Amino acid sequence: MTSATHQTPTPEQYGVGARFTLSVYDSDYVRIILEALGSADATDLTIETNDISTFITGSEQRVLAYVQSVITAAARSGAHLSAAILLSRGCPGELQCALPPGVHALAAAPIELPRSGVRARAHWSLYPLLDAGSESPSVHAASTPQAAPADHMTPIYAAIEQAKAEGVYSGSDHYATRLDGDLSSVLQTAANAWIGVGAAVQHVVTHLTVSINSPTIPGASDGASDGAAAAPLA
Amino acid sequence: MTSATHQTPTPEQYGVGARFTLSVYDSDYVRIILEALGSADATDLTIETNDISTFITGSEQRVLAYVQSVITAAARSGAHLSAAILLSRGCPGELQCALPPGVHALAAAPIELPRSGVRARAHWSLYPLLDAGSESPSVHAASTPQAAPADHMTPIYAAIEQAKAEGVYSGSDHYATRLDGDLSSVLQTAANAWIGVGAAVQHVVTHLTVSINSPTIPGASDGASDGAAAAPLA
Repeated sequence: MTSATHQTPTPEQYGVGARFTLSVYDSDYVRIILEALGSADATDLTIETNDISTFITGSEQRVLAYVQSVITAAARSGAHLSAAILLSRGCPGELQCALPPGVHALAAAPIELPRSGVRARAHWSLYPLLDAGSESPSVHAASTPQAAPADHMTPIYAAIEQAKAEGVYSGSDHYATRLDGDLSSVLQTAANAWIGVGAAVQHVVTHLTVSINSPTIPGASDGASDGAAAAPLA
Repeated sequence: MTSATHQTPTPEQYGVGARFTLSVYDSDYVRIILEALGSADATDLTIETNDISTFITGSEQRVLAYVQSVITAAARSGAHLSAAILLSRGCPGELQCALPPGVHALAAAPIELPRSGVRARAHWSLYPLLDAGSESPSVHAASTPQAAPADHMTPIYAAIEQAKAEGVYSGSDHYATRLDGDLSSVLQTAANAWIGVGAAVQHVVTHLTVSINSPTIPGASDGASDGAAAAPLA
């Protein structure tokens, strides 16, 4: 309909970005968060921080490099921290997508992050969204049945197999897959599955809750410590 | 195929539940979290806490009452805190749904929570999932086009209108709707939209990031304080 459909949209136009909340379990959290945000390279990114979370848009590689960098800097304080991270592609805008549903899904290159040296454990969920093929942006939507989008489960399972091969997969819990490894490997696994599914489905969101420096894991890379033995610090 | 399809599943069988991570920005976080978890009424719930998050399953009303109660207790410490909350219905199990896709979506009564006295600001996202009508539980899925599920946007917009009428709606940001009000109103708005959409779509997930006692909002109910003026404490 518009000329935009004839050009490859930029990451910003396609809504590639993240929203994340970094929580620091330490009374000195203001300093730790401000220093971490200040230390990260914001080149080629649009970043907006408010009292709940920080929004970032740009290429997949730059967005994830920024998130990795902020969390790594905060982790080096030694404080226990958690990060709630949302990654989204294919639905720019706020309440309603600025792109119509059913546009051609846009592939992107997998990301690659340098090792952080920070051990992270995470719960990860990946959501290919219904609006991709069956929702119109109007209030009374979803009245037009369409063909199911291309296979989106294959890249999810491929990402899990990849995570197993890399030793990052740490099991599955209700509603989430557990990842455990270097922060960069954890983010790479989640982001590359999100990118992979996004090659077939327009609107894909993934959520991660990352835990770092938890006192229930005394630094050792000794695998999961679920259950009653772990102090309930969630 | 099984007798389970002829009976109304229990909330546990239908996968009704939550996973949440409570982050306390205070060096005394262990005590605050343990006391908050210990003070909440766990009647009729199954609860499992590990180092990343707490999982709860049971009826919508009981699950949300528990979450409200834990967060309220922690908030009364006066510490700044955030909570990352995932609510899910329609997909019990871990990596794969224990229910087949396309089962009859199960309606539930809206929840109602007593006022908490705690002001909460939140980013909220609601996800009706593609697997509801177009995914088989096998790895090579989504080859069978099916009719789009019933209108799932109407309850989303109705929930936003309701939130506006109650004064809980506080605008929209990229990837999330802002809610601001008593913690109970915030949780009720998100949960009742999730329940409402779940009457039409089998698998519905909603995510909330809730911020409480943020030093960027000095206790006043003076509306949003977005942008450059707010200290970047996300």
